[in-house]
This record gives sequence, C-alpha cells and structure tokens, in this order.
Amino acid sequence: MADPYGVHNLPYGSFSTGGGAPRLGVRYGDAVLDVAAALPPSGARAEALRSLDALLAAGPAVWREVRAALQDLLTGSAVPAEHLHPLEGVRLHLPFTVADYVDFYASEQHASNVGRILRPGQDPLPAAWRHLPIGYHGRSGTVVVSGTDVVRPCGQRREDDGTVAFGPTRRLDLEAELGFVVGVPTALGEPVPLERFAEHVLGVCLVDDWSARDVQAFEYVPLGPFLGKSFATSVSPWVVPLAALEHARVPPPPRDPRPLPHLDDAGTGPWGLDVRLEVLVQGTVVSRPPAAGLYWTGAQQLAHLTSGGASLRTGDLYASGTVSGPAREERGSLLELSWGGTEPVALADGTTRTYLEDGDEVVVRGTAPGPGDRVVGLGEVRGRVLPARGQPT
Amino acid sequence: MADPYGVHNLPYGSFSTGGGAPRLGVRYGDAVLDVAAALPPSGARAEALRSLDALLAAGPAVWREVRAALQDLLTGSAVPAEHLHPLEGVRLHLPFTVADYVDFYASEQHASNVGRILRPGQDPLPAAWRHLPIGYHGRSGTVVVSGTDVVRPCGQRREDDGTVAFGPTRRLDLEAELGFVVGVPTALGEPVPLERFAEHVLGVCLVDDWSARDVQAFEYVPLGPFLGKSFATSVSPWVVPLAALEHARVPPPPRDPRPLPHLDDAGTGPWGLDVRLEVLVQGTVVSRPPAAGLYWTGAQQLAHLTSGGASLRTGDLYASGTVSGPAREERGSLLELSWGGTEPVALADGTTRTYLEDGDEVVVRGTAPGPGDRVVGLGEVRGRVLPARGQPT
Repeated sequence: MADPYGVHNLPYGSFSTGGGAPRLGVRYGDAVLDVAAALPPSGARAEALRSLDALLAAGPAVWREVRAALQDLLTGSAVPAEHLHPLEGVRLHLPFTVADYVDFYASEQHASNVGRILRPGQDPLPAAWRHLPIGYHGRSGTVVVSGTDVVRPCGQRREDDGTVAFGPTRRLDLEAELGFVVGVPTALGEPVPLERFAEHVLGVCLVDDWSARDVQAFEYVPLGPFLGKSFATSVSPWVVPLAALEHARVPPPPRDPRPLPHLDDAGTGPWGLDVRLEVLVQGTVVSRPPAAGLYWTGAQQLAHLTSGGASLRTGDLYASGTVSGPAREERGSLLELSWGGTEPVALADGTTRTYLEDGDEVVVRGTAPGPGDRVVGLGEVRGRVLPARGQPT
Repeated sequence: MADPYGVHNLPYGSFSTGGGAPRLGVRYGDAVLDVAAALPPSGARAEALRSLDALLAAGPAVWREVRAALQDLLTGSAVPAEHLHPLEGVRLHLPFTVADYVDFYASEQHASNVGRILRPGQDPLPAAWRHLPIGYHGRSGTVVVSGTDVVRPCGQRREDDGTVAFGPTRRLDLEAELGFVVGVPTALGEPVPLERFAEHVLGVCLVDDWSARDVQAFEYVPLGPFLGKSFATSVSPWVVPLAALEHARVPPPPRDPRPLPHLDDAGTGPWGLDVRLEVLVQGTVVSRPPAAGLYWTGAQQLAHLTSGGASLRTGDLYASGTVSGPAREERGSLLELSWGGTEPVALADGTTRTYLEDGDEVVVRGTAPGPGDRVVGLGEVRGRVLPARGQPT
C-alpha cells in the first residue's frame, strides 16, 4: 500500500527535538519535516511558519502557498534529508493552542442510541436535533495531545440504593470523534456561511472525548455535561488539511426536515467526509465508526456555531461528537457498544469490557480516501487510563 | 459617604492612555494608578506588574506584597500624582485574558424560579441541585469588557404554531452574576479543597451573562445552553481582591442535605460574600440581588470544578449564575422579574419591559461592606443592546 503520509497528505503538527522549543512540523512518511528550516524564507510566509498557531492565523492563501511549496520540495530532486527527523526521535506536542472547544452531537445513530439507552420509552432524538447541530462548550484547558495518560476522574453519582456518593467513576468511556481546527478568526456578530467553511478551517484531527457516564448522568440536567467531560479530551498530534481530503468529500445523508436556509447545504459543495475511524481497546479493534454518515457536516456545525453572533478565534476546536454508524460494530463509544453496560465487549486477550478499566489503552485512528488508490492517514489519538488519585478531603 | 475606592479596596484592571498598550492599573478614587510605574521595581515583583495576567499568575505571596505596597504608597505623604490617571481619560480593557469560562447555577431562588417558569408542575430544582453546584462551560472568546455593545443575537426558536424559525431573539435577557478570577493554576488531577480557595482566586468581578431565552429553550436538551449564551458575556473592568472583602464574608445559607465532605464548608471559614448587586435598565433600578444568599459559595464552586480532575489555568473565570433573592425585587434576570414575560416591569420613563429592547442599556453594579462604615465598590458592568445584524443567507 502506498504511504498514507505521502505528499498527498502532509498533516501539520508541533514537534521538538532534544528538549528544544516546539516548532511547526509536517509529517512525511515516518518522519517530521521541520517546515521553517526546509522552506526558503520569504516575507509573510516566514512569520506563518513559526508555529502551527501562526500558520492557522495566516489564512487560506498562505495555507495554499505553503502546501504547494512543501509538495514541490518533497517531490523535487533534493529532498532535504537534514530537515527530516524520524518520528521515533521527536516529541509531539499539542499541535496548536486551543482557544474555545465545542463538542457537537452530530451522529444520528449515536444520539439515537444514547436516547434509547438513557431515556427509554421517549423519542430517542431531542426535539431540536433535526433542526440544528446540538452542541456545547467543553473545557479547552484540559485538551491534551495523544499519548497523555488519563487519570480516572472522580465525581458524584447516584447509587442503586438512591444515595449520592463521591468517588472515582465506574463508567469511564471513550468517544471517537472528528475534530475541526479553526484558523481564521471572525468578529463578534459575523456568521460564517456554509460556503466559507474552508476559508476558516484549516483541517481536521481525531478526538477522544473521555466521558464519565455515571457522573454525567447525575449532573447534566439542565445545563449539560460538566465534570463528566471536563477532566480530559485527547487529540491527535496531526491536523490534516482540508486540501488533503478533497477525495474524501461525499454527500451527507438526506435531511428531513430540510434545514433552514443558513444550514441548507443542498446548493453548496458536499462537506460530508469519508473518514473511517477505528477504535482499539488494549489492541483489539472494537469498532469502525464511519464519519461519512454524520448527519451534520463540519460546515454546518461551524455555520450554526457562528449563526448567533459568536466570534471565532484562531485555535478554536470543534468536534463532531461521537461518530457511530448503524451497525453494532460501528458504534463509537462503550456506552453504545455495551448498550449501557449490559452487553460486554470481548477483547482479544479473552477479557471483556463494559466500561474502561485502569491500565486500558485506547487508540482511535483514522484514514480517508486520497487520490487514485492512495489513502490519507489521520494518525491516531492514544491514551492510557491511570487509577484515580486520592480523593479531596 | 467615604470613597468606595479608597485604600481598603484597590481593585485591579487593565488600562491604557493615548492609544498605548494596556497595562496594570489599580483604581483609587476616580483615578487609575499605573502600578508598575508607581511601585519601586524589585525582582520577582517587577515581572508580576507587567499586566494583570502576570499578577494573577504570581500567586498569593506576591498579591499580599503588592497590595501592602500600594496601601503604603497611597497612605503615605507622597501620593504619586504623576502616576494617577483620571478615569475619564483612560481606556479600560478586558482586565485579564480569559482562559476557560464556567457559569454556575448557585442561587436557589434563581434555579427555583426558572424551574417554576419553564417546567411548571415539576420539582423546580433539578435532582442534583442540592448535591453539587451545577455548572457548564461558556464561550470564553466572547467575554467582553463593560461598555461593549451587544448585538441582538440570532437563533432558532419554536414558534407558537409549532414551526421552527431562525431570526433575532425576541427574549433577550440579562443575568446579574458574581464572577471569580483564578490566578494560580493547577495540574491535571489536582483538586482544590475548600480551604485553598484564596490561594488560587485573586478576586471577584461583576458579570452580565446575556441570554436569548427563546433560543436557549429550543436548544438546551440534553447538552445545555449554547447559542442562547455564546454571543456575549460582559464583565466589569475591575477585579476586587478577596483581601478587600474580608468584612463582607458571611455564613452561607444552611444546606440540606449536608454536602459531601469535599463540599462541606462547615469547618472552614465562611465564604459567603455580602455583595449587593443592583440591576438597572435604562437608568431604572429594576432589581437588587443579594449575593450573600447564594447556596453554593465561590469556594464550593471551585472545589466542585476541580474535584473531577480538571486543571485550572491563570485567567479561568467562573461565575455564580444569576443571583436572585427571595423577594420579587431581588430577582437577577428579566425572565424572573417578568415571570416568563407575563408581568411587565415598569421603568421610570413610563415604559415597561418583559425582555430587552434594542437600544436598552443595562448596568449591573455592586458594593460590599468594608471596614468600619466604609463600602467596597465593585464598579459596574454596562452594555447597550444593538439591533440584530443581517441574517446569514
């Protein structure tokens, strides 16, 4: 198979070597290219190459220029070996400074499953669900890069006997999601219409939105999840440019009712993305969620987010919410895979899981179709569960 | 009456003169003292005086040292007139860089009123309400300083005939709140127990959490408010140090059931704060919400926020949620004052309001008892409603 990190991909990240400061890198094969060192310096571009934050802010004209220059360089006769650092020798950092973090709920299968599990007997989808991409703000200060250990969080939960107890969560879950990274900011009151999505969003990453289901269930009425989600959100180290996903663009599912005009993408190019996720627990693939089936696209999520008047900042991150497909083996969370803890999931080592155990390592990885028979790699987001720390006294 | 901005107060803010860069100021009477210029430079302190962000990060030992030095300077024989800038000649900026913004729901009267208005016939308080301070993350990128105009936001709402429409909110509201400003960060997984509240929080500000009630009502199940709150949150330009509020500390209301140990403040010093708010619409005082009655204190809010494992960053802002007292004239939002729009509020100009109209100016101001007969001024947070901009197409 052709390399999923060839010149058709070129995802951006932040790397360092030998304890030095983080700098802008692009993944090429199994190496990281030091972008600022490898590209000839030029006025505005030089500033944009200082960091991924700077590149994000520089906007689509510079994104195109830098990508073209990198492709020229790497397909040319003199690939700059001295600026290529083998992946195993570098440290990968949180790729960009996260401004606000928003998490959507854009998978119909996920939202329906959650509704059936947590609110049996009611309409599984909330009343507004087909009218707008429901979402909420998460904690941007606890977004961490792949590889960061996740300490089992504490919180209050309702026990079976009706009492309320505080302690480590007993229902620690993963959520496999697709994230969108905002580059170009907007002013207050300035909506981003669907057709300007790619002028503001540089690209996508993978997200594991760790969740404490018992804590979340107790706290979430009426203001939404808080401690159940705020302890950690892991992201992949690579931001794959939208420009690398041109061959992954697919029509989104049909919507009923037709969205209101500002969310109606019938007349715009399709922004469904055929990103194929895989979720591994302790090395066993437990799910293959298909992002192509998301009811609301990243363009619609952004249009909704800004339609009220909220401004964007460079580094805003918004995620799709758990990606789940219609088949059982396509569900993007353990809540769904184990159907609320009632149907354990088998791992290759002979054990089973309903929720995560201490020591478990979770990996979410993804690919998308590229040009011809090539594949675009989205890398992976990885995290291991550590035991809860001592409770506050 | 003695000056509410005397040496017993000394709130911090960020100011500029003549188009220069923002710098750390302290309000003294009707002037702003340029702190870095006025205090003799000394090692660690000099770094902390660069900005309020830097002072926040410097921690409680430096906070005490700087406050003592300012009090010495301003009570001495040589008050440095050349470093005192009259308020009317300076520009006041967002006082600090907001990291994460969290909004709680800590007033029993507010939460009960909202429950009665929006969910009649049900228990007005959510099931978890007396067990923990319910809260959610807001949008930190749209926190603005007092004086910033607020454009009427758009969003989707359910019409009376059952259809769903997009357009400018018809139920624009204010929320009078008390905000807490975090200085000293924590690591992931490190809770802040009640008794360490003042080691992390420098002080308080006033908050107006603008809300679009029709948008919020349509969107908030099950993930909480999003567009209904994300368009703007206004804060006062002054952060009043907790050290200036020693005389405002009062016992919080009795709690039933007794909070779990990590939220049980029976054995700690009281962190109820007798801050008396006033809400003005077009110059008419429409409410006087008493923060002393908040069920959950700022110390409990912080203990809860960090109890799950979430870390703190310098510049984290968390607010109490709407402050409402038991009397009608103590309700901190128009939703409550007009009881869901059914009981219009009279203004001095002979007009009435259920929700805010274009052109309305809202002011939330506050005071607290200081030493002797002195009063601690918390300044004000002010904003005018501008008409909605064109809707996205």
